[in-house]
Amino acid sequence: MTNAPADSRAAPQASDQYVQSLARGLAVIRAFDTDHPVMTLTEVAARTDLTRATARRFLHTLVELDYVRTDGKTFALTAKVLQLGYAYLSGLSLPQLAQPHLEELSLKLGESTSAAVLDGTDIAYIARVTTRRIMNVGITVGTRFPAYATSMGRVLLAALPPAGLKDYLAAAEIKPLTPRALGTVPELLAVLDTVRAQGWCLLDQELELGLMSVAAPVYDGPIKVVAAVNVSLQAQSVAARPDPEAYLASAAREIVATAKLISADLTARR
Amino acid sequence: MTNAPADSRAAPQASDQYVQSLARGLAVIRAFDTDHPVMTLTEVAARTDLTRATARRFLHTLVELDYVRTDGKTFALTAKVLQLGYAYLSGLSLPQLAQPHLEELSLKLGESTSAAVLDGTDIAYIARVTTRRIMNVGITVGTRFPAYATSMGRVLLAALPPAGLKDYLAAAEIKPLTPRALGTVPELLAVLDTVRAQGWCLLDQELELGLMSVAAPVYDGPIKVVAAVNVSLQAQSVAARPDPEAYLASAAREIVATAKLISADLTARR
Repeated sequence: MTNAPADSRAAPQASDQYVQSLARGLAVIRAFDTDHPVMTLTEVAARTDLTRATARRFLHTLVELDYVRTDGKTFALTAKVLQLGYAYLSGLSLPQLAQPHLEELSLKLGESTSAAVLDGTDIAYIARVTTRRIMNVGITVGTRFPAYATSMGRVLLAALPPAGLKDYLAAAEIKPLTPRALGTVPELLAVLDTVRAQGWCLLDQELELGLMSVAAPVYDGPIKVVAAVNVSLQAQSVAARPDPEAYLASAAREIVATAKLISADLTARR
Repeated sequence: MTNAPADSRAAPQASDQYVQSLARGLAVIRAFDTDHPVMTLTEVAARTDLTRATARRFLHTLVELDYVRTDGKTFALTAKVLQLGYAYLSGLSLPQLAQPHLEELSLKLGESTSAAVLDGTDIAYIARVTTRRIMNVGITVGTRFPAYATSMGRVLLAALPPAGLKDYLAAAEIKPLTPRALGTVPELLAVLDTVRAQGWCLLDQELELGLMSVAAPVYDGPIKVVAAVNVSLQAQSVAARPDPEAYLASAAREIVATAKLISADLTARR
């Protein structure tokens, strides 16, 4: 998961149209994460490359606005920060349209299903239906993974126009996350060709050992891919089936069918 | 659901420690919602009480930072905004601890289960397990409702110290949301006394007709209530049971037991 609070380190924009204080404030919010849920002023300053005096002003402002709470010594985000992410989610019709179809498929296959969009070089989950067999219990809406290392990411990358893919490759760092994962750009491009040709993507333990997934693209209109949906499979239970290949093929057919239903609903809303 | 982008209208803080640009920028993000997912500059300026020139600078900055995308004429939030909400969620251990227990209960009762925290005068959902019978399909993590009108909110209000409850009552506007709902402060206070005494809360169609729910408090340590969990019930299917009262009593026992399991896990992590 990539969650570096890099905004404050972005090259300052010379334009008088750029509000640096906003960039820095957002970086302060993003400095909090799983490993840093509660921080001192010194820690926030260090993680945002701000001086202590500057970090103090931003924290003070966020406390005034109720986005941060403090006991006088340490700082933590409040639930109000969720309102920011919710501002994005509530404007999307896709999660609501996708949810019943994802639930249907999850029930049918007894596996977790998800929807995600491309966000920079990552995918971000926008909907998820879990089963009790789920392995990655920590994945929720908003969770991010490097696009190249996921089935949904590869579906989304395969749908990029050539210029978009070029930008992605310039920005992304392709490296294997498991011993079974691809690790070079030519390997990735070959996989994307296959994904493009077959209309779906199978990922076999390249994000995490033991975990497989199959993804398909969601269209808004005839040609525009706006999201991907997937179903997670446990490698062990796939291997234990009488005919693993046939099972994976049927899972691919199911996710493609689900993606088509969601695409039809989405396109009908235009 | 309350989602007014009120930050920019908050009384400006005189202190030189207050960064007004950050407050305004966050208000611009929150100006986008279900009814305003795509806006022109004029619309953003109107919804944030900013001049067009000021709104343009904030939108420009958010575009530079990839939190907003534009086609030159209209503006919309991007998935990157989710990272802000995720910064809060990923720092909480509660959603991950609660999820398996909520799934267990959802499976047992065949109903949707949720966890929420108090945020100002609202509750905010931090975890949710849905079933296919779900009525409120639009509720996701981050969704908000007025605390007084929900079972989880009443559990959380009942746990406030007297000063906290006083602050809440000064800030909240208590009004009935359905014909079956209470609408005065004395009525609410009487209900909170009951909730405090019995350790759980039953809500009978006061948020939405046809929807009931039962909630219980989640403790971190021996006395500190940090969240509430609930199970949603359809009034019609409760009424169709041989003994509705007994069914509601068993649902209350179940949610209290689930809340205790989550509290034990949370307390063990301290």
